[in-house]
Amino acid sequence: LNLLAELLLLLCMDRIVLIGGGNVAWHLQFALKHSTEFKVIQIYNRTLESLKDFKFVPEHIDDLSKIKEADLYIICISDHAIEEISQALEFKKGLIVHTSGATPMNVLCKHSRMGVFYPLQSFNKNKSIKYKNIPICIETNHKSDSILLKKLTKVAFGKAYFYNSEQRKKIHVAAVFVNNFVNHLYYLGYNYLENNAIEPEILYPLIKETALKIKKTHPLKSQTGPALRNDFITFDAHLEILDNPIQKEIYKLISNSISNIYGHKL
Amino acid sequence: LNLLAELLLLLCMDRIVLIGGGNVAWHLQFALKHSTEFKVIQIYNRTLESLKDFKFVPEHIDDLSKIKEADLYIICISDHAIEEISQALEFKKGLIVHTSGATPMNVLCKHSRMGVFYPLQSFNKNKSIKYKNIPICIETNHKSDSILLKKLTKVAFGKAYFYNSEQRKKIHVAAVFVNNFVNHLYYLGYNYLENNAIEPEILYPLIKETALKIKKTHPLKSQTGPALRNDFITFDAHLEILDNPIQKEIYKLISNSISNIYGHKL
Repeated sequence: LNLLAELLLLLCMDRIVLIGGGNVAWHLQFALKHSTEFKVIQIYNRTLESLKDFKFVPEHIDDLSKIKEADLYIICISDHAIEEISQALEFKKGLIVHTSGATPMNVLCKHSRMGVFYPLQSFNKNKSIKYKNIPICIETNHKSDSILLKKLTKVAFGKAYFYNSEQRKKIHVAAVFVNNFVNHLYYLGYNYLENNAIEPEILYPLIKETALKIKKTHPLKSQTGPALRNDFITFDAHLEILDNPIQKEIYKLISNSISNIYGHKL
Repeated sequence: LNLLAELLLLLCMDRIVLIGGGNVAWHLQFALKHSTEFKVIQIYNRTLESLKDFKFVPEHIDDLSKIKEADLYIICISDHAIEEISQALEFKKGLIVHTSGATPMNVLCKHSRMGVFYPLQSFNKNKSIKYKNIPICIETNHKSDSILLKKLTKVAFGKAYFYNSEQRKKIHVAAVFVNNFVNHLYYLGYNYLENNAIEPEILYPLIKETALKIKKTHPLKSQTGPALRNDFITFDAHLEILDNPIQKEIYKLISNSISNIYGHKL
């Protein structure tokens, strides 16, 4: 009887095939491991070796012709390779989506049912993350398919947003500013202290507070520092003790950008 | 008997006078409100009006000649005014410190006992903060006085660090990168989405994760994004859809800085 119940449950579940063995795919299979509504049935990658950590997917394949019928195919590979690999799914009836912020949905236009499932977070296999905090940007060419992606979001992830490819590209640009570029500024701060024999960990509480503040205060209102105060003395003193030309350029350019916005010029 | 005990306790406490009525002074009196080891006995400001929120200081003054004898004077005013105001404390026996990252201890050199108590955090009167997370940079000209500042740190704040004025200036520069400049990148991301009718709150989980990651992972290792991958296609596409020249300049410069460090050139 238990076996029958399980079988019935399995029949009701939406079946997912993952394409690609990188960080996004790894976290998708991990996030869905206990789901009773979605079942990752198969994963494809060029090499099986890269799939050895994918413990929650029953079938690993490196042959595109062996891809099974499924309700949803999620392509999680490099942007430039999405279009080509999607051709291997040409005769599948399921919904085919990619997970890229920068890539238009249209690269999948050979398929009658296409979409995008873009998690706005940067993933790393070795770093656990609260999936329920991850916003998902959804796009589909059929309204009914957006229901399936919304359900997937509700089951395992954070808030669902519905944006088209142009808007998603803009979200991706903004993400580059607040994630990639911010991380680089962290690096510049850490590196500068290390080069001067100072423990960089001293910066961590400030980094954390600066980020958490944004939840309640718009960054326009939380700005502080010499550039905001139009403090030339500190500006010059800082430029003098920076180590290298690119640090100085970044210091000048961002200070000028701050001064422009708050109405005076450095 | 209770009164006597209280009196004895008061006699053993270190007495503090605060100079200045800004955000740092406000948080100092608030952080010490329940302390049994330090007692803020007085606060000075040019105008009494600005002191009306300082509920935990019994005496508010706007006349420098009325400053009392104390164990510790903490000057919390704009950098350029520290030296001048410290002259009003010329004949005091207590330790005189300022709280500025960018200002050398030497501006207090007319006093035999001088020091710096620099909290590495940006404060706002209206924003509560966990004082126990705030690192304090300490400098004094007498070793025994560093013990007093270390005790003050232990009572109410986070980790104590001992750096000289040159080192502190460098910490201040690094703080500008990871706090002021990072906040400005948050602003650029938020503003760009708002201008394109997209809710900027979608960025918040990414902002938070990017910051918290630094506790365990050095920013050199946590870098991601198009510049790191040497992805020209995304680089060009992003530059094309940015709104204004200064955004584009920042995008190019930071991308180049990332590429330089990771060994290829955009």
